[in-house]
Amino acid sequence: MHIRKLGEFGLIERFRRRIRTDSTVIKGSGDDCAVIKFDKNNYLLFTCDMLVEGVDFLSRENPYLIGRKSIAVSVSDIAACAGVPRYCVVSLGVPGNKSVKFTDTLFKGMLDLARKYKINIVGGDLSRAEKLTIDVSMLGVVRKERLVLRKGAKAGDIIFVTGALGGSIRGKHLQFTPRLKEARFLTENFKVHAMIDISDGLVQDLSHILKQAGLGAVLYEESIPQDKQARNLKEALYMGEDFELLFTLSRPDARKLCLKDRRNFKAIGETRPPGYGLKSVGKDGRERNIAAGGFRHF
Amino acid sequence: MHIRKLGEFGLIERFRRRIRTDSTVIKGSGDDCAVIKFDKNNYLLFTCDMLVEGVDFLSRENPYLIGRKSIAVSVSDIAACAGVPRYCVVSLGVPGNKSVKFTDTLFKGMLDLARKYKINIVGGDLSRAEKLTIDVSMLGVVRKERLVLRKGAKAGDIIFVTGALGGSIRGKHLQFTPRLKEARFLTENFKVHAMIDISDGLVQDLSHILKQAGLGAVLYEESIPQDKQARNLKEALYMGEDFELLFTLSRPDARKLCLKDRRNFKAIGETRPPGYGLKSVGKDGRERNIAAGGFRHF
Repeated sequence: MHIRKLGEFGLIERFRRRIRTDSTVIKGSGDDCAVIKFDKNNYLLFTCDMLVEGVDFLSRENPYLIGRKSIAVSVSDIAACAGVPRYCVVSLGVPGNKSVKFTDTLFKGMLDLARKYKINIVGGDLSRAEKLTIDVSMLGVVRKERLVLRKGAKAGDIIFVTGALGGSIRGKHLQFTPRLKEARFLTENFKVHAMIDISDGLVQDLSHILKQAGLGAVLYEESIPQDKQARNLKEALYMGEDFELLFTLSRPDARKLCLKDRRNFKAIGETRPPGYGLKSVGKDGRERNIAAGGFRHF
Repeated sequence: MHIRKLGEFGLIERFRRRIRTDSTVIKGSGDDCAVIKFDKNNYLLFTCDMLVEGVDFLSRENPYLIGRKSIAVSVSDIAACAGVPRYCVVSLGVPGNKSVKFTDTLFKGMLDLARKYKINIVGGDLSRAEKLTIDVSMLGVVRKERLVLRKGAKAGDIIFVTGALGGSIRGKHLQFTPRLKEARFLTENFKVHAMIDISDGLVQDLSHILKQAGLGAVLYEESIPQDKQARNLKEALYMGEDFELLFTLSRPDARKLCLKDRRNFKAIGETRPPGYGLKSVGKDGRERNIAAGGFRHF
């Protein structure tokens, strides 16, 4: 059987089932970051993201932005767990015919983003490869009481996103701002039940949150913020690479958040009991089933 | 200018010069692992290694052994700093036409080696790629007083290796045993001045130790242990992928080590003052210059 038949998530699940971890691992594979015991007040967060030419970026794209993105996607994972990024290592597979100007510019994109968030680039590995391949592994810390995972959503929660969705592939995926500040604001002021960053599309990433909690949900079509580069609602639902935060709050917390900041956080739906599935409601007030979907590698 | 002209180490040096790290980073890029402040008694070690099909292994090779190697190379880096490996994340770029049997076997190779050394696989990233690409990032811990780096060799030190060198590409590179046990024994009983694992070849990796200390060295040709798969001394000097430990001890410590264990540790030479360069002495007693060389990606 080809792995294409099993699909990306089938393959990941197949790996995950076979892994055993010891008691120092609070949360292993299956969230935005791994969570490891660290000290009295903090957990360590550990995450990795591989970018491959032709899949995550095109060879004609600006190397500065490719370098920037390679660090930013891991920062976004740390943000989704409400942590602070601290250290990273960079593995670089480079075709031998690239110019020094290209690798200089690529590296400047990495350095500038790392510097902006006070992340230490502490090491790396350089290899020859046919296609430019960048893998960044990042360590962060999070205060124990601040940690937010994908699990933890409750029935009746309000579902929120930061920023706007869709059309990211037309530019934003190379220039997005990881939502560290927003995650900090949220966990300082509210009890965030569940959170994830949207990398594979709103519907697919929301389904991770719902699956973990065994819940359904309804989305309000009119409330889903569409990026100016999105062509339609479908792109906002499925396109992915938004790197916005998707999270749920209790109703009282949701009300407070709406009063505090309606601009950066949009309520887009509510969780529902398990049997409900995933639906959307439009202007006409009718419920429609939302088909599963989003970016998949296989 | 193409990066090929700058060369692997030229390119790495070009990146390294531009990196700034904060005071929590004891040792950034440029050693087998990064060393980061952790707690009162221990440092955190952080390392990554990327394996690319066609460079670090061939597509026809046993996927179990490819998976095994992908974890083992990082364990070897942790061993070179005298640490204990604890956690890793795995980024996997896989061609869509691979079979589930292939990825199952690959993953079993990873799991078995991780389990052997009690390493927690805590996360990963899965991506489509044209060539199988595996990047493992590993965290380890080391007691502060045990930490050994590439720097620290002193004039008159005796140079040692574990195991035997050369011919690794004919099989050992896929089945080597990372020298964790040996590193522990050494740092429990001796003051190891400098240590590195041999990945790019004895001459090239020794030159890293010598460069850091500003020293020369002489190697005794007859004393360099050749693996049974090595065809000649040249392969033992230059071939690489041995994943043996190369380290230096003071003369009194060297004498003690030879009395304790002559089987697992071989004295192969001595450091010399800076102007001496790198030479070898054969049966005839004559000194020969050793040409620089070893595995380079560009």
